[in-house]
Amino acid sequence: MEAKTPNESKAIMTDLVLPSETNPLNNLFGGELLARMDRAASIAARRHSRRITVTASVNHVAFNKTVPLGSVLTVEAKISRAFRTSMEVFIDVWMEDRFSGERTKANEAIYTFVAVDDAGNPTLVPPLKPETDLEKERYAGALRRKQLSLVLAGKMDPHDATELKALFLD
Amino acid sequence: MEAKTPNESKAIMTDLVLPSETNPLNNLFGGELLARMDRAASIAARRHSRRITVTASVNHVAFNKTVPLGSVLTVEAKISRAFRTSMEVFIDVWMEDRFSGERTKANEAIYTFVAVDDAGNPTLVPPLKPETDLEKERYAGALRRKQLSLVLAGKMDPHDATELKALFLD
Amino acid sequence: MEAKTPNESKAIMTDLVLPSETNPLNNLFGGELLARMDRAASIAARRHSRRITVTASVNHVAFNKTVPLGSVLTVEAKISRAFRTSMEVFIDVWMEDRFSGERTKANEAIYTFVAVDDAGNPTLVPPLKPETDLEKERYAGALRRKQLSLVLAGKMDPHDATELKALFLD
Amino acid sequence: MEAKTPNESKAIMTDLVLPSETNPLNNLFGGELLARMDRAASIAARRHSRRITVTASVNHVAFNKTVPLGSVLTVEAKISRAFRTSMEVFIDVWMEDRFSGERTKANEAIYTFVAVDDAGNPTLVPPLKPETDLEKERYAGALRRKQLSLVLAGKMDPHDATELKALFLD
Amino acid sequence: MEAKTPNESKAIMTDLVLPSETNPLNNLFGGELLARMDRAASIAARRHSRRITVTASVNHVAFNKTVPLGSVLTVEAKISRAFRTSMEVFIDVWMEDRFSGERTKANEAIYTFVAVDDAGNPTLVPPLKPETDLEKERYAGALRRKQLSLVLAGKMDPHDATELKALFLD
Amino acid sequence: MEAKTPNESKAIMTDLVLPSETNPLNNLFGGELLARMDRAASIAARRHSRRITVTASVNHVAFNKTVPLGSVLTVEAKISRAFRTSMEVFIDVWMEDRFSGERTKANEAIYTFVAVDDAGNPTLVPPLKPETDLEKERYAGALRRKQLSLVLAGKMDPHDATELKALFLD
Repeated sequence: MEAKTPNESKAIMTDLVLPSETNPLNNLFGGELLARMDRAASIAARRHSRRITVTASVNHVAFNKTVPLGSVLTVEAKISRAFRTSMEVFIDVWMEDRFSGERTKANEAIYTFVAVDDAGNPTLVPPLKPETDLEKERYAGALRRKQLSLVLAGKMDPHDATELKALFLD
Repeated sequence: MEAKTPNESKAIMTDLVLPSETNPLNNLFGGELLARMDRAASIAARRHSRRITVTASVNHVAFNKTVPLGSVLTVEAKISRAFRTSMEVFIDVWMEDRFSGERTKANEAIYTFVAVDDAGNPTLVPPLKPETDLEKERYAGALRRKQLSLVLAGKMDPHDATELKALFLD
Repeated sequence: MEAKTPNESKAIMTDLVLPSETNPLNNLFGGELLARMDRAASIAARRHSRRITVTASVNHVAFNKTVPLGSVLTVEAKISRAFRTSMEVFIDVWMEDRFSGERTKANEAIYTFVAVDDAGNPTLVPPLKPETDLEKERYAGALRRKQLSLVLAGKMDPHDATELKALFLD
Repeated sequence: MEAKTPNESKAIMTDLVLPSETNPLNNLFGGELLARMDRAASIAARRHSRRITVTASVNHVAFNKTVPLGSVLTVEAKISRAFRTSMEVFIDVWMEDRFSGERTKANEAIYTFVAVDDAGNPTLVPPLKPETDLEKERYAGALRRKQLSLVLAGKMDPHDATELKALFLD
Repeated sequence: MEAKTPNESKAIMTDLVLPSETNPLNNLFGGELLARMDRAASIAARRHSRRITVTASVNHVAFNKTVPLGSVLTVEAKISRAFRTSMEVFIDVWMEDRFSGERTKANEAIYTFVAVDDAGNPTLVPPLKPETDLEKERYAGALRRKQLSLVLAGKMDPHDATELKALFLD
Repeated sequence: MEAKTPNESKAIMTDLVLPSETNPLNNLFGGELLARMDRAASIAARRHSRRITVTASVNHVAFNKTVPLGSVLTVEAKISRAFRTSMEVFIDVWMEDRFSGERTKANEAIYTFVAVDDAGNPTLVPPLKPETDLEKERYAGALRRKQLSLVLAGKMDPHDATELKALFLD
């Protein structure tokens, strides 16, 4: 299969934060943001693979910014690396100040999706060809994150996770 | 503040998987499960702290089982460790076969919440006193996960993450 | 079929009261509570019968407590008596004060469900074996409620409702 | 306050049955129907009282007809009797066959609402003046149902429920 | 096919304005009103044609009145003219003041629907026989609106739109 | 106020078509598409004006393509002309074939929004400076559409609608 660029899969989901999605402090629930990011990332994975895609895992996600009711929130998802049947998707979340129009980073997250056929079996996906510096950096990091994921799932011996060990030993 | 046990915060959320929560293969969206787990975990954190609680982070979550439309899904959340103003919450997800009644583990996840006052400022929470072996094991692991979280957020030098290094070097 | 205990069917549904479920006084709509109780009760009935279950009737329900926006609400449903193809389900609803953690009874209700096969035809369900005093009391009352239900539906002559008449004549 | 007729409060809510409201047999959940009836009845009570109204109780409701996905469902609510601060509301539910256009009775229910001021305190409501034979019959029955409600809530001694006793002894 | 009157298709949808449907000023979103009107109008079209109906177009809609949270909103839809396989539907929207009970016109709109068979192909619909003066006036205007629609879609030469030209040249 | 370009207000809303938004033929309801377009357009208007914006009107909208359940739908909204306190917004809707990845135009629509202050009063908005040929064409057409809107609302004599008359007389 022919390689694709991250831009070919880029999905942008801009929407308002509605009252049914907010907590008692009138800020967006963390769980609702996770659900929005999942939908945007699944679309990016679908565009890359042209298949049905199912969420395989979510990396560690930190919520550093609160997102108030009525905000305009933009979720941007792009494939950061393609493996055999799975794809890592990077998600950047932005919010805008209503009056200044200033756009600030509200969050980022990394999801992994698997492409499946109509019976739910994993199928091959095209390789990814990163273009920008940021895309290349995220592409490189994906292998380390995959090892971490396997170690955490008990599917890889930590001592074999060479990419990961380097992080702690260099 | 007096210590509490994990059971005092335990939140059980049993509900059906509805059509509006499923993907084209008629299975629960990963993102919807993340949102349900967030609500259950926030209730556990609220019970432990008796405060408003906001999602601080979500650990790595793997989706190994598909959850079909119409399933009965049970999300169980319990505090696994309390820090100064934050709490780690362990979430176990079960689904039941309609005919055999058999209950299988569908997923597990770890969220961290911060207790805040009405102005949104972090406030102290009671310590946790684990009781069962599983609770003690999860309590012990929480420190390692906190270090990993700090390392991933760039807030701790990997070489100082003593608990975490041990995982790779032992 | 082997008898089951009420605990084997017990379904616990703990969740937050969200803004989309509240009236102009910022309290939970009665109708939303009825819908939540129906879902919890249908899960209990499904666990007892291991069949698809459909709501047959709802007993008289009184709403004595208001449940404010942001409350943690726990709906607990257990089979109180099994008839040939139908089951009576008792539902207890609790809400918690956020600050004191105090748990108060918010409501209770009684629903009846019928077990059906995939074509929608009623099918046999196992008998119920009550264990605690409360379960035995509810089990005993179920027959009187069934007669009341039949009388109200015009399917039983009030003079034949021996259990029910006793209530007014003793 | 001047008396009003049932027609002045009549609320008609016609809507489709959507996929998110149906059970595994593709029929409307009983609980969703209870919630729709509650909204329609609260509007009727509001029209009669010109106040905020809150659900006080729901009479026994039987579900004899299944309502398939995609049906057009019409919920009609009218005040059947006004007491001091409360109103009994009768709700008739109709569904239509898509091809023949035939309209069949799908359900009926009786809810009681209380009129409240902005602080949530009960306030007086106008009396009701029934017009048609059916309205008069429902008006007459309301007193018996009120006694039954008080008996079931343990607020009236069954021996004092004269209207109700007559039902079993005549 | 036998002609039907507008009243035979009349659909009334009365419902509350809920928090999840309102903008930052606590008024109903224009888009939510468009969606409600679409559902009511599709029911009217379905009653007239006894077929599945799909939205073909929406005429110009102006939003002159704001509809606050908690309002009782009544959407009334009636067929205004039937063509070969399509129907024009007139929608009148009313809102009520909670205290005075006064009913004011909140909006009106005109949608066009096509009747289709189960494969999605257009099928014939019965003619419409208007009765009241308003119905006759709307019936007459429908042809002019159809021409405008065709001109705007580039499917009719403006010079052939005789009904429409008259509007500007008389 | 300084003029802005259409691109500065461009809002992209990509999302899946979910089961709760589809009709009996499993296609997106026209009304749901109208609601999505309204949210996207309101965001574009808010970006241009940096104010709360409310829907003032919707131009004629035709639904020529059906959008099946599970589609990826992209709604793109850009300001096409700014008047004193109102803005015309052009919305283009695209859907993608899951297997070929081919993107086809599913719809287009034109909404008008008014910028308001926190009390709901109209406030001035910056002028628009179109850049591309398409933007210039849409900018030019906006005046004609405004006249049509005023004529249809009975606020302008058709004989004074010089831009509009030209359409029929040239």
